Amino acid sequence: MKTSVTVLGLGAMGTALARAFLAAGHPTTIWNRTPGRSAELDDLGARRTEDITEAVTSAQLVIVCLLDYAGVSEALHPAAAALDGRVLVNLTNGTPAQARSTAEWARQHGSQYVDGGIMAVPSMIGGPAAFVLYSGSASAFEQHEAALATLGRATYLGSDPGLAPLHDIALLSGMYGMFAGALQAYALIGSEKVSPNAFTADLLVPWLTAMLTSLPRMAADLEYGAEPGAAGSNLAMQAAGFVNLIQAAEDQGVSAALLRPVQRLLESAVAAGLGDQDLSALVPRLATEVTRVG
Amino acid sequence: MKTSVTVLGLGAMGTALARAFLAAGHPTTIWNRTPGRSAELDDLGARRTEDITEAVTSAQLVIVCLLDYAGVSEALHPAAAALDGRVLVNLTNGTPAQARSTAEWARQHGSQYVDGGIMAVPSMIGGPAAFVLYSGSASAFEQHEAALATLGRATYLGSDPGLAPLHDIALLSGMYGMFAGALQAYALIGSEKVSPNAFTADLLVPWLTAMLTSLPRMAADLEYGAEPGAAGSNLAMQAAGFVNLIQAAEDQGVSAALLRPVQRLLESAVAAGLGDQDLSALVPRLATEVTRVG
Ligand SMILES: NC(=O)c1ccc[n+]([C@@H]2O[C@H](COP(=O)([O-])OP(=O)(O)OC[C@H]3O[C@@H](n4cnc5c(N)ncnc54)[C@H](OP(=O)(O)O)[C@@H]3O)[C@@H](O)[C@H]2O)c1
Ligand SMILES: NC(=O)c1ccc[n+]([C@@H]2O[C@H](COP(=O)([O-])OP(=O)(O)OC[C@H]3O[C@@H](n4cnc5c(N)ncnc54)[C@H](OP(=O)(O)O)[C@@H]3O)[C@@H](O)[C@H]2O)c1
Repeated sequence: MKTSVTVLGLGAMGTALARAFLAAGHPTTIWNRTPGRSAELDDLGARRTEDITEAVTSAQLVIVCLLDYAGVSEALHPAAAALDGRVLVNLTNGTPAQARSTAEWARQHGSQYVDGGIMAVPSMIGGPAAFVLYSGSASAFEQHEAALATLGRATYLGSDPGLAPLHDIALLSGMYGMFAGALQAYALIGSEKVSPNAFTADLLVPWLTAMLTSLPRMAADLEYGAEPGAAGSNLAMQAAGFVNLIQAAEDQGVSAALLRPVQRLLESAVAAGLGDQDLSALVPRLATEVTRVG
Repeated sequence: MKTSVTVLGLGAMGTALARAFLAAGHPTTIWNRTPGRSAELDDLGARRTEDITEAVTSAQLVIVCLLDYAGVSEALHPAAAALDGRVLVNLTNGTPAQARSTAEWARQHGSQYVDGGIMAVPSMIGGPAAFVLYSGSASAFEQHEAALATLGRATYLGSDPGLAPLHDIALLSGMYGMFAGALQAYALIGSEKVSPNAFTADLLVPWLTAMLTSLPRMAADLEYGAEPGAAGSNLAMQAAGFVNLIQAAEDQGVSAALLRPVQRLLESAVAAGLGDQDLSALVPRLATEVTRVG
């Protein structure tokens, strides 16, 4: 018999999680604040309840996936007593500090707490590219690792519950940077009626794929120290080119707002005498005690 | 006999271009404002001159790769008369407007003008992942296509010389978004002494690679119109999560300046009633007449 699971929250992501557990044969109880959401799960064999305490007591492994931690507090407080002896895995996006205080609250109610960061969109859940980062109770993670692996590759980062959200938020910051860059690119080519499909397949994806290969070098520079200029793209040259990114956006009637803080970061580094360095030299300058870039 | 080529500018990129032409057996003349730069090219058989007019008249195909268009004007004006009957390929980064006015100036001096955008770092030149975008004189491009392909895959975008820089700048905007996101990620994990090498190999590169696969869908939404919510990551959820990206940065002593304009763009879209839409709904909002995001 597979571990029974409860999924709290049937938004786009909670629905995908419940679907994956059901597909893998886990007895699955579902609960959502607004009743009746994701009716297709009933046909797939889910046991639905509108009573949060009943939901929590229906399984050893309770997965929470709500919009935010305010929702988690609101939903779980009425069922706090029912948490005793259960494993609570919170896959709601939040900060390290939120994860640590929720872990402490759960501990006080006799629950073992694991925090998680889902590195996937709903359609990827259960597929080969999905991975989920976990931190918090090691024994709870080990006990349920097989069940959790149903959702995607399960990576445990340590007992501090803040570690999974820290890594999650770092990765999401990387993703939003990439998406913001793509939005800017689409707005620019859109100003000249270039086809987004062709631009993406022929140019944008090959280009970003090629540029991704420079991240291991940037990481090595951060880990071992950089040899200035070794990358062949010095910051002074990049700052000179960046002027054109802003100017072209303005000429095309596209906002340069997404670009400006990157320009300020580049220019402040050049002004500080780092014009012969590579991009990795910008990382320490993001520490707020070093400089203000915006 | 291969086409003779002149390379004006021996910075990191001009040096890589000259090196590739020499390796492919093109008689190559080199010129740089500051004499003696990149001495290794002499050993590889380059013919060096300090006289810009002599440099321009030494080859049918004149490649320019200087820091910016101000440098191009300054360097080429003394040699304007020598341009008559030659092909000028300008690979200096610039805006569409700069390319168009330089094309007009070159035409007035009897030169066929091609503008280009190099989509590679110097170490990639001549390798399989490098590509260069060209626009401007179609006959000049066709005549020298084989020589230009020495540098990387040569893509001709049309006779308007502004097209290559438009695409170049769109791609660079995408790249700087991705790099800015990576810088933010490194600053965050650096605040907890996580190894940049391990983070990059195990998490950041696989994650960004997975997220790149959502760009074709975003492009299709832009091309054909989006079905709201189909991507499973609605903007209201993303705006709620984004609060955590900012808060976590601040908690860790990392500047949130790179993130703020992305947050403003997301929140203004949600406030405008687009909370159930996907990221592609943000692109039209970057048109400056629609909204001000910063
Ligand atoms: N979708 C993705 O691509 C993705 C990827 C990775 C991580 N995540 C994370 O997964 C979590 C859920 O995202 P989602 O895409 O499923 O969002 P969603 O589709 O907008 O669903 C939000 C869910 O949260 C519930 N909720 C909100 N406030 C609540 C409250 N005060 N009390 C109880 N329930 C409340 C909603 O219930 P109602 O139905 O009653 O409104 C709904 O079930 C978020 O933290 C998100 O950051 C999502
Ligand atoms: N490196 C890359 O990763 C990369 C990638 C794609 C495109 N690009 C583009 O390629 C171009 C060159 O970049 P780079 O990396 O070679 O830069 P770089 O290493 O900083 O070299 C700059 C070159 O421009 C010359 N220069 C600057 N101002 C000049 C002036 N007023 N008159 C004459 N020459 C002048 C410099 O000559 P001196 O030696 O006399 O200073 C030097 O040869 C830029 O437009 C850049 O955006 C570079």
